[in-house]
Amino acid sequence: MRFGIIGTGTVGRTLASKLVSLGHEVTLGSRSKDNTAANDWADRAGPYGHAGTFAEAAAFGEIVVNATSGTVSLHALELAGGEHLEGKTLIDVSNPLVFSPTGEVTLDPVNTDSVAERIQRAYPAARVVKALNTVTAAVMVDPGRVSGEHNLFIAGDDPEAKAQVRIVLEEFGWPAASIIDLGEVQAARGMEMMMPFWLRLMHHFGHTDFNYAIRSAG
Amino acid sequence: MRFGIIGTGTVGRTLASKLVSLGHEVTLGSRSKDNTAANDWADRAGPYGHAGTFAEAAAFGEIVVNATSGTVSLHALELAGGEHLEGKTLIDVSNPLVFSPTGEVTLDPVNTDSVAERIQRAYPAARVVKALNTVTAAVMVDPGRVSGEHNLFIAGDDPEAKAQVRIVLEEFGWPAASIIDLGEVQAARGMEMMMPFWLRLMHHFGHTDFNYAIRSAG
Repeated sequence: MRFGIIGTGTVGRTLASKLVSLGHEVTLGSRSKDNTAANDWADRAGPYGHAGTFAEAAAFGEIVVNATSGTVSLHALELAGGEHLEGKTLIDVSNPLVFSPTGEVTLDPVNTDSVAERIQRAYPAARVVKALNTVTAAVMVDPGRVSGEHNLFIAGDDPEAKAQVRIVLEEFGWPAASIIDLGEVQAARGMEMMMPFWLRLMHHFGHTDFNYAIRSAG
Repeated sequence: MRFGIIGTGTVGRTLASKLVSLGHEVTLGSRSKDNTAANDWADRAGPYGHAGTFAEAAAFGEIVVNATSGTVSLHALELAGGEHLEGKTLIDVSNPLVFSPTGEVTLDPVNTDSVAERIQRAYPAARVVKALNTVTAAVMVDPGRVSGEHNLFIAGDDPEAKAQVRIVLEEFGWPAASIIDLGEVQAARGMEMMMPFWLRLMHHFGHTDFNYAIRSAG
């Protein structure tokens, strides 16, 4: 399958490399043609890895992944071009972290809105699925870095798109039973609002190879 | 030990009953003397269970528990009287849920503040510890309702108060190793911001007997 990845940071490159290793073809999209991270990645990725602009990546992908910072995602997708998102599954991996000069981390949007909802409102013809934003990049594509059983969460309005994302997550190594569907795209609020807690756990453990396992009665 | 519990809802009554069953003495505090829930509870609780006003409960407790809704906690504690909180460990169990007429649930405060921080700022001589707000009342006092190992979280500025709360949680049945200290009281933001995610899990499971287990590498 062809994937277009919007964003060349650690998350974008990690997902891109995993997808290529699984036999998919990927265009890693950046703001400008001369993005070093994207070009270096494409040079090493082999024949199935390409670098391009946001628009080229979005046009290329049958599935599009938003791997930009949540605070700039709307702008990045505007550059990608709404016409390249129509009818496509758009996996939103972002978190809208705002880092203050004092070191305080907050979210924007939060509480009454989320990045995933904003994207879905801006591009009603896209099929937005929030996923993967609750774990660090390395764990996204290698759940075995964390011991035992643990969970991923998905949210979105389109059942077919969520089914498609489940398949991708299973290819990444997530057992089918580990993926919990939290409901429509509005549930992305709760997923994004896990971040302040996640950051505290990072300080507690001193690393990022951890994740949530949801335990239930019975 | 003597506990004063502020709030006569399910959380307050559940904690009060458990504490009495453990041999502690409890005053369950309500807004008015003629609160039926508090008086009925005290009638059934035996000689170690009392009903009183917020102020009587706070004055009675060596440890005070805020079990009111987070949106009214500051007002309830004002009625309880700051002079009755001085030097005491104050366990804040609250979540600031706001229910809109359309069924939407949001938080206030959120993101840049939390109920626990507001209480600590309003009563600097109290030793606020956020705890227990991430599980339903029945699980708070009976972790075995959820299968396997799972976690509780605490946050607060005062290490001695946190140590005291750990002892109470262990009496409730939480293994020492299951309690994760997330740091100072500001970490309560992350704990309160888990609620929208928790509510989605409640809809997913169709019940409230679930909890988070944090899985880590190694």
